[in-house]
Amino acid sequence: MKKKDDFEHGGNITEIQDKFSFSKDEIIDFSANINFLGMPEVVKKTLKKEIENLIHYPQPQAENFKKELSGKLNLAKEKIIAGNGAAELIYLLVDYLKINKILLPVPSFSEYEKAALKIEAELEFFYLNKEDNFSLNVSELKKYLKRNDLIILNNPHNPTGKLYKKNKLRKITKLAQKENTYVIVDEAFIDFLEDENEYSLIKEVENFNNLFILRSLTKFFAIPGLRLGYGIGSSKLITELEKRRDPWTVNSLAQVAGIEAINDKDYIKKSKVENRTERNFLFKSLKDISDLKVYEPSVNFILIKIKKELTAEKLRNKMARQGIIIRDCSNFRGLDNSYFRVAVKSREENIRLLQVLKKLLK
Amino acid sequence: MKKKDDFEHGGNITEIQDKFSFSKDEIIDFSANINFLGMPEVVKKTLKKEIENLIHYPQPQAENFKKELSGKLNLAKEKIIAGNGAAELIYLLVDYLKINKILLPVPSFSEYEKAALKIEAELEFFYLNKEDNFSLNVSELKKYLKRNDLIILNNPHNPTGKLYKKNKLRKITKLAQKENTYVIVDEAFIDFLEDENEYSLIKEVENFNNLFILRSLTKFFAIPGLRLGYGIGSSKLITELEKRRDPWTVNSLAQVAGIEAINDKDYIKKSKVENRTERNFLFKSLKDISDLKVYEPSVNFILIKIKKELTAEKLRNKMARQGIIIRDCSNFRGLDNSYFRVAVKSREENIRLLQVLKKLLK
Repeated sequence: MKKKDDFEHGGNITEIQDKFSFSKDEIIDFSANINFLGMPEVVKKTLKKEIENLIHYPQPQAENFKKELSGKLNLAKEKIIAGNGAAELIYLLVDYLKINKILLPVPSFSEYEKAALKIEAELEFFYLNKEDNFSLNVSELKKYLKRNDLIILNNPHNPTGKLYKKNKLRKITKLAQKENTYVIVDEAFIDFLEDENEYSLIKEVENFNNLFILRSLTKFFAIPGLRLGYGIGSSKLITELEKRRDPWTVNSLAQVAGIEAINDKDYIKKSKVENRTERNFLFKSLKDISDLKVYEPSVNFILIKIKKELTAEKLRNKMARQGIIIRDCSNFRGLDNSYFRVAVKSREENIRLLQVLKKLLK
Repeated sequence: MKKKDDFEHGGNITEIQDKFSFSKDEIIDFSANINFLGMPEVVKKTLKKEIENLIHYPQPQAENFKKELSGKLNLAKEKIIAGNGAAELIYLLVDYLKINKILLPVPSFSEYEKAALKIEAELEFFYLNKEDNFSLNVSELKKYLKRNDLIILNNPHNPTGKLYKKNKLRKITKLAQKENTYVIVDEAFIDFLEDENEYSLIKEVENFNNLFILRSLTKFFAIPGLRLGYGIGSSKLITELEKRRDPWTVNSLAQVAGIEAINDKDYIKKSKVENRTERNFLFKSLKDISDLKVYEPSVNFILIKIKKELTAEKLRNKMARQGIIIRDCSNFRGLDNSYFRVAVKSREENIRLLQVLKKLLK
């Protein structure tokens, strides 16, 4: 297992605060990919009211939240399972399916690797093509699928920002099905897309019994503190998973927040538009910095490679001293010490990031 | 596995509301063992403030909460692990210890049995002595300990209310240690005792490396909607469990609520006193009803056996029609269909319970 540090997942600003004695307000955190618009106001309001109801147990299977999702996604409630973040659902699935061998295209989110280690599954890595924008070669992948029980994909891909076409993922799922291999597609960031239905596989769970989709409300609705995600699969699979899950893993506040959030059309629209605008601005401006190779983003974060003699770790430390936190990506398997990732934030914050970057790279 | 229904855990009042068209306020729920004083005011206040911070990830290991607990319990932080309820911690433990055979004194909380089934462990039941107030015969238990990897005890015992002496549990733990058997003691209700240190085994984790204690903030602080529990074990054991746990299972609101709650000395004292007063009142009054055998309670719930020709299920349904929910205990292994459990509530509510019970048993 790779070395861990406190920056492993981004978003850990406490240490920076302590180290450089910044106040929370002085730090701009580009390391966690959270919607910069913040939590919807209607969610805050509902949470305040809902505090009185904490004396009751949560709905064990988050029935109301699932009903609401079912309507929004136009998908039967029986195909949806709520979870305390993606990790709970991954464990539930691999445990139920008795998965022994997991294929992991890398670089990828470290929690997948951790989940595999935890269940003592064998891990095989499939290195995405760095030279070709981290593309995924399906014909190459084919032989790997055969010898594994599960492949974990994510779309849009984190940390590269690469967006895979629905057809490509459908093709992989079909190939996997022939080999009795399960497919998880983590769509944690897909809500940021304006045309998410062109990319999401959620409607395909009716066609593929080997497919499981992960979704998260954490990033798009800016509620990482609350813990709320969900999974989508065939009714048969979801029924089995519901039987096996612990009751009450999703707290009541997360459940009501989820219902309010997915109904806040204005916030959803505004978020998609503003994140796109800022992403385009930041991408374009970063590309103008000659010492950086900037990978084309699709959602609210951007992967960057430093082209000069400077490690991402050193850059991170220098930037932290200026109150700006970036995500050093050297602990992603398949990325070397020259990669870092930044979230897309407000115009003012993005400009500050650009200024500091330019100064430090001079 | 036994038949489940919506009343399995108590606290599910939605169905009763729907069935008899009561409003939430008209129903008195005696089925969930939650402190009738409700959530501490200081917790509500803190939660309202903390909503703004939900845009940050929770502390992955609930560091601040553990530090605070460490001070209150006078126990090294390294011996404490926070969890999203007891279920998460039980799974974590049995998974890490590779438990194959679990000994379960019954009747007991259904989640233990569910956990065992989930990890496909073999379950052996040890029937507590109903005729002798559900006493636990240590010399009889001895041979059972030998052929199992883990025993799950709870003290005070749910649903019987039986309180086991510290010496007895220490003796069992010692015997178990000799047989390389692990011991979980679930102390979910121990905070309701005024002399909990006389009964709790938390200080014994330094002496027994086979001991793991479960604690919950759900019941005493009346926050079942928030999800917060913790485990106590040797530093070595806890270190291994922390390595294996998923990050962020405990949401940020639960973490700050926990810190406020355990520091609210007035609420803690008041809760112990008032729950004792009401328990004594309810116990004494129930004993006066001739058709009931009432087991001596120790905390905030009372187990009762109906001595006439009436099942607990029928009684439950009759009472539900009067807006009162009791816990039919017939789905507890080892109890027949004549047992039910009630929580201790406010004087007014307890009197209402007594009135309705008397009327229906006439």
